[in-house]
Amino acid sequence: MTKRNCFIGQSGGPTSAINASLAGVISRCIETNEFDHVYGMLNGIKGLLEHKYIDLKEKFNAKESLENLKNTPAMYLGSCRYKLPTFDEDPQTYNALFKTLDDLHITDFYYIGGNDSMDTVAKLSAYAKTIDSPIRFIGIPKTIDNDLMGTDHTPGFGSAAKYVAASMLEIAYDSSIYKLNAVTIIEIMGRNAGWLTAASALARSANCDAPDLIYLPEVAFEKDKFLNDIREVFKTKRSVIIAVSEGIKDKNGEFLDSDSKYAKRDAFGHILHSGTGKVLESMVYQEFKCKVRSIELNVLQRCAMHIASKVDLDESFMIGESAVDASINGETGVMMTFNRVSNDPYQVICEPKDVSYIANLEQKIPVAWINEKHNHITKELYDYLLPLIQGEVSIQYQNGIPQYINIDHLKTDENTAD
Amino acid sequence: MTKRNCFIGQSGGPTSAINASLAGVISRCIETNEFDHVYGMLNGIKGLLEHKYIDLKEKFNAKESLENLKNTPAMYLGSCRYKLPTFDEDPQTYNALFKTLDDLHITDFYYIGGNDSMDTVAKLSAYAKTIDSPIRFIGIPKTIDNDLMGTDHTPGFGSAAKYVAASMLEIAYDSSIYKLNAVTIIEIMGRNAGWLTAASALARSANCDAPDLIYLPEVAFEKDKFLNDIREVFKTKRSVIIAVSEGIKDKNGEFLDSDSKYAKRDAFGHILHSGTGKVLESMVYQEFKCKVRSIELNVLQRCAMHIASKVDLDESFMIGESAVDASINGETGVMMTFNRVSNDPYQVICEPKDVSYIANLEQKIPVAWINEKHNHITKELYDYLLPLIQGEVSIQYQNGIPQYINIDHLKTDENTAD
Repeated sequence: MTKRNCFIGQSGGPTSAINASLAGVISRCIETNEFDHVYGMLNGIKGLLEHKYIDLKEKFNAKESLENLKNTPAMYLGSCRYKLPTFDEDPQTYNALFKTLDDLHITDFYYIGGNDSMDTVAKLSAYAKTIDSPIRFIGIPKTIDNDLMGTDHTPGFGSAAKYVAASMLEIAYDSSIYKLNAVTIIEIMGRNAGWLTAASALARSANCDAPDLIYLPEVAFEKDKFLNDIREVFKTKRSVIIAVSEGIKDKNGEFLDSDSKYAKRDAFGHILHSGTGKVLESMVYQEFKCKVRSIELNVLQRCAMHIASKVDLDESFMIGESAVDASINGETGVMMTFNRVSNDPYQVICEPKDVSYIANLEQKIPVAWINEKHNHITKELYDYLLPLIQGEVSIQYQNGIPQYINIDHLKTDENTAD
Repeated sequence: MTKRNCFIGQSGGPTSAINASLAGVISRCIETNEFDHVYGMLNGIKGLLEHKYIDLKEKFNAKESLENLKNTPAMYLGSCRYKLPTFDEDPQTYNALFKTLDDLHITDFYYIGGNDSMDTVAKLSAYAKTIDSPIRFIGIPKTIDNDLMGTDHTPGFGSAAKYVAASMLEIAYDSSIYKLNAVTIIEIMGRNAGWLTAASALARSANCDAPDLIYLPEVAFEKDKFLNDIREVFKTKRSVIIAVSEGIKDKNGEFLDSDSKYAKRDAFGHILHSGTGKVLESMVYQEFKCKVRSIELNVLQRCAMHIASKVDLDESFMIGESAVDASINGETGVMMTFNRVSNDPYQVICEPKDVSYIANLEQKIPVAWINEKHNHITKELYDYLLPLIQGEVSIQYQNGIPQYINIDHLKTDENTAD
């Protein structure tokens, strides 16, 4: 039987679970004994173009532990924000990439990332077919935004959702201590899809009724309605807790912070929002003249491994394993997806789907899962979300802080290929 | 033997550990069987003036669990921001307070809070002496700022420090993924004392060299030096991670964000800072034109019970117990303090100290514990901090989120005394 080599890359923004998928791929590659070398490209496809990679089979057969990798946040292989041009735009890049892959006897290529990374997988697999390259390209999803099409949910979302729900709960306790009217606005990541903001509803229990109000980018934001909603809550409570997506828009589709000084764009031209909470804070203060605080949940939403979801990490590992099985079975040009075959008991299976139908699309919350008043979520959405945040991870602590895997290889310019 | 009743109150800002001290007081009150009634004033001394209180002995003998109370963040009894006037300013308030205490046959009064709460304890105990009241007043410290005099450290600080260190570590991983020059600025709570910002240094380990730079309010901030410090770090690394206290000041003692729109004052007239990180972000961008991100760690610094320090919670419980022992021994006008009798092995004992020497003073970081370049901390400070964040708490989770104690009594206007 012919031995083969493979490449794994990570791309896009970090999550708590993307290293679990990497660990799943490495683990299955080693288990199946199909591969001589399991290479990890450093800083995604951009690193590959610069011949920057490491031998993962070597590294994880030796001293490093896959379990520690699974429980480490952010991206062990580093990332890039690089938009792969089309072949017509830049044939040289394709020639260079495939030469590198051929030189290293690569037969399988696994790319873990979000929407833009799936675009890369789609382009490379389509090009491979045009040149009769046997290399198989498999996409493995990840994003805290949960906005990829074709999959029940995305790896990384459950851990971010658990962080958001737990933070909402703790902030609700923090906000309850003074005997005065107060509004607390919690701004949550999510550009066009409100899944993560919706997850704040998971804070609710017999002992916590926060969030009182939830505003999502899927429905138009109306200032007057918003202020009325708060007025209604004040009739029965002193402390109003509001979850708001950074990406809420008015009925003309304008972001609330569009012309604020915070507006920035990423390498793909997407606006990076920040400041929606501050805009609302000022709106509420002008109307109610009460204590108002806006809190922007920061990057810990995507990297707080210490409160990751066990379900999410286990599934992220599993989908990495399934990618190896898929390519060994001859699949290419696919993204691995979750199919929820049962909600109670919760059960998912991994299935490959044609990546060209997935890339560059966004999965938003169905409006039927938002309540009629457009200020909270329905039970259907709650039930969908609940299984994804179950279970706690047992992180190893040393000297009082989590002990994550060493990532010194990301800090230098060394690489094995030079 | 004459039975007696006591009052417990909480005041000031919330911490993850202030309920542990409350649990310690209740636990010892029940254990010693000295008290018929253990009352909890709702919303501090202000609630007491309005006759708002609950019977804690009843509540915690029945269904609620002291362990669950110990592991719940924020303030079970609620808080107030109320500056008790002096007797000369407002004799009526004193008369009303002591009448309420006498009517309820109160012999012991425990007040858990920060600097301003200790001022209340000092005033009430001094007044009691002038009227020959036998009521004993005991202060129990708490503050995430660690800035109270007379105690090795304060309950609540260790948990906030552990949150800051773990967050610093996770943000450092998050910031390492791109191959480009970047500066990440993490703004940490601390008005005049930099203890909590210094605790970010606990993120350092064999696998993490963040934070690269630390700026504290105890030494003057100089813009040119700051930019030079970053330039130096860039010589060896791409990703520069900076911890900065919200309260840093220039050589004239001016806060960096003094005249920003964020400047607010609390009920005691203290400026509430927010925006220092944004000011530095702009400074760095103008100089280096690189990726810069500022992150303001939010109220989770004081309420993230899910990553609290076990040492802190256990000590906070213990100092609550010791307060009961002290008043039973006849002490009054004291604050309970920690005396670190040994650092290795770490051991503290609780001792009462005259509260009048403690109230209204601030314990800052000794300059000898800041490095010569004024951009990091010394090993002595690291060694002082390290024991305080040790150990993890085992929070009960239900439906994927922490299960904290019910605080519905804070949400209504009901009270037992009406």
